Amino acid sequence: MKKIEHIGIAVKDIEASNKLFEKLFGASAYKTEEVASEGVKTSFFMNGPNKIELLEATSPDSPIAKFLEKKGEGIHHIAFDVEDIISETARLKREGFKVINESPKQGADNKLVVFLHPKDTNGVLIELCQEIQPQ
Amino acid sequence: MKKIEHIGIAVKDIEASNKLFEKLFGASAYKTEEVASEGVKTSFFMNGPNKIELLEATSPDSPIAKFLEKKGEGIHHIAFDVEDIISETARLKREGFKVINESPKQGADNKLVVFLHPKDTNGVLIELCQEIQPQ
Repeated sequence: MKKIEHIGIAVKDIEASNKLFEKLFGASAYKTEEVASEGVKTSFFMNGPNKIELLEATSPDSPIAKFLEKKGEGIHHIAFDVEDIISETARLKREGFKVINESPKQGADNKLVVFLHPKDTNGVLIELCQEIQPQ
Repeated sequence: MKKIEHIGIAVKDIEASNKLFEKLFGASAYKTEEVASEGVKTSFFMNGPNKIELLEATSPDSPIAKFLEKKGEGIHHIAFDVEDIISETARLKREGFKVINESPKQGADNKLVVFLHPKDTNGVLIELCQEIQPQ
């Protein structure tokens, strides 16, 4: 794991939250993206080597809608940047961690992602992510 | 704000959580520290330019004990590294953010810290921190 790639924050109203984080960082989101398969709209803010991802649900049965209902707005996950998501997932499974999705899936911001089960990680939802390289 | 300095995670049993995060990062905590004024024991893991801070309560009325009681284990705060905590706090107050402690106080890991009120920041407790320079 090379660094914290981003922190994902679940929000109710991404337009209002974009304004808030613009004020916090003194800069606008560098990207907004809808991930239909996950039922979310996202926006990304750069902060040095790290990013903040805001997530708003676009469907009532998306994971973010369920999170907001259960816990309210707040930090949803931490994503760590990995060099090789396949070997890192295998290493963590050998160490006893459970993964939510066995095979990497395509996430926002051009990434392959694997989630670890938060029951094993002190209630923290951890994402491993690897940049998808151009062919 | 220069980067995510660290993410603070509230845990019930820091010894058990240290073992877990050792497996996650493949490396031990580089520092453990008790901050009596905050009623916490902490341990710090390095991850590239970022850190993870684990926090266990040492007194039943510490903020971490209250957090654990209310929300259970999980992410407690995000800390951003700032160049000049006085001017950054003043800038954020002008932008409408509320601060929890008006004057910077001494935190763990040789830092001056100011917390923003999570009601203004989508339920996320944000810490500004500045390294204390040797005199």
